[in-house]
Amino acid sequence: MASADVPPTIAWAGDRIRLIDQRRLPAELVVVEATTVEELCEYIATLAVRGAPAIGVAGAMGVALAVVRGEDPAAAGERLRATRPTAVNLGWGVDRALGAADPVAEAQRLAVDDVERNRAIGRHGAPLFASGANVLTHCNTGALATVGWGTALGVLRAAHEAGTRLHVWIDETRPVLQGARLTAWECERLGIPATLVADVMAAALMRAGRVDAAIVGADRITANGDVANKIGTYAVAVACHHHGIPFYVAAPRSTFDHTLPTGDAIEIERRSPDEVTTIAGVRIAPEGIAAENWAFDVTPAELVTAWITEDGVFRTPPGPDVAPAP
Amino acid sequence: MASADVPPTIAWAGDRIRLIDQRRLPAELVVVEATTVEELCEYIATLAVRGAPAIGVAGAMGVALAVVRGEDPAAAGERLRATRPTAVNLGWGVDRALGAADPVAEAQRLAVDDVERNRAIGRHGAPLFASGANVLTHCNTGALATVGWGTALGVLRAAHEAGTRLHVWIDETRPVLQGARLTAWECERLGIPATLVADVMAAALMRAGRVDAAIVGADRITANGDVANKIGTYAVAVACHHHGIPFYVAAPRSTFDHTLPTGDAIEIERRSPDEVTTIAGVRIAPEGIAAENWAFDVTPAELVTAWITEDGVFRTPPGPDVAPAP
Repeated sequence: MASADVPPTIAWAGDRIRLIDQRRLPAELVVVEATTVEELCEYIATLAVRGAPAIGVAGAMGVALAVVRGEDPAAAGERLRATRPTAVNLGWGVDRALGAADPVAEAQRLAVDDVERNRAIGRHGAPLFASGANVLTHCNTGALATVGWGTALGVLRAAHEAGTRLHVWIDETRPVLQGARLTAWECERLGIPATLVADVMAAALMRAGRVDAAIVGADRITANGDVANKIGTYAVAVACHHHGIPFYVAAPRSTFDHTLPTGDAIEIERRSPDEVTTIAGVRIAPEGIAAENWAFDVTPAELVTAWITEDGVFRTPPGPDVAPAP
Repeated sequence: MASADVPPTIAWAGDRIRLIDQRRLPAELVVVEATTVEELCEYIATLAVRGAPAIGVAGAMGVALAVVRGEDPAAAGERLRATRPTAVNLGWGVDRALGAADPVAEAQRLAVDDVERNRAIGRHGAPLFASGANVLTHCNTGALATVGWGTALGVLRAAHEAGTRLHVWIDETRPVLQGARLTAWECERLGIPATLVADVMAAALMRAGRVDAAIVGADRITANGDVANKIGTYAVAVACHHHGIPFYVAAPRSTFDHTLPTGDAIEIERRSPDEVTTIAGVRIAPEGIAAENWAFDVTPAELVTAWITEDGVFRTPPGPDVAPAP
């Protein structure tokens, strides 16, 4: 596998954290190091490392970094938690490390665990797709969004490796272009046939009968099954609903937040208007125009066909006591 | 009006055509000249001049240019017609000039006529919007898409100038970014309050109750009322339908093609994948990834709340004999 050449998205290295700088993909594959919690927070805030499962492990490793540096782990946890509000995994990772007798060991355990859970998500989800299927995906949910393997793209990877002939429609995913930059790069490396499209083409493809299913990841899933995910996910779900196309969400159980009843309670991160008014450093909009930039949206549970987790495929949202994650 | 400083989008200048080079907006406002039919075809194909009404007049002026240069007008018409297949106005303008006793005078007449028709569209459409309304628009349908004034954006301009307090959500309109580049520039010049968003945010704005109506232009409207327009229009229409939000189409009667029964018969232009894989000359996707780039999509008539024309607002698509355009 070409993908075997790629280092883990994020890894513990004794007294520092190594991570792929995803801001520089697909132009170059560069591994950078965070030796302080501040550096790590900056990497998370600027999306050098992103993806709910990946930043969950980053949160745990950040607490571990504070421990080995002799700093206050609780204060480090608060700083990490504040970098991005929407993905529940970040706070979850911080809490797991803070609550462990050995935060350093716990962070490393979560990293190993992440890959295993993703592979299980892939095993459960792969049979949902028939050979010949055209599957639309939004944002990046592959190895780069996790420690390794991936969630939604990991399901398609598992199906592909099991011999199911799939073709993937990749939404470019404005404004940060995780689809064009990262998912396209991963599909090429994995040899999964894929075609990149502007996000606005997805609905037209569905009307043309060119989409058999859609699959996305999640940043937070509330008790009723509502799904916060990358901005644009909701538009895909609405279009799938209109065309009677299955809409799947793939995420580990750590993405489920049973403390929130519905998606209305999820804090949606607002990011800089510059992500909309400039692309790759080039100004595209006139100076002075206002821009609004919600990083996530919420898809109500009634638009979700199934939630694919490491514990199986659920046609109704799994409660906290349903086959709980260990 | 700041907009009074802007030259017409396209104008006849005796032995040449002057037009705003829209590829260079919003960075700079530059008027270029076409002195041959070849030059004009290149300007149309590369979107230096675009928008169904504007390229309709460009087609007529191209035939006029052939006449003054002593070239075969019919051959010029064929070359012009082939540059862009979807907008019916281009072939309409060519045919109007070819069928006139004096193609040069006819081309100039169509240019004057275009502005008058747009102002009439604006007068009819403006009362559809209440003060305080948030109105979403897609692509560019302002003065730059026409000889002057505009169609869908012209309706919002007419409402704004009549004292209706509007706020416009501007879809950036990937891949060519006509919203971010051109509609944002026009709204700023006209003093219409507006906010730019990535296309994928439109549905989320609707769910949040932040959109009261959507209005778009059209490149071709078939006998049954189906609307071909910029890619992404259909996604907006589906999202409006899901949320019970009015979806309006504004276009002159010359955009109605009564020879085609439904939108299924419309030829959809495919443009270069480079428009998706690069932005402003910067490569955003990995080398080698396939990309598909449909320039237009078709919105079925059942998703259209009303068709706004120079002859009035129609709640069912106007037939060829309903208040025919003169």
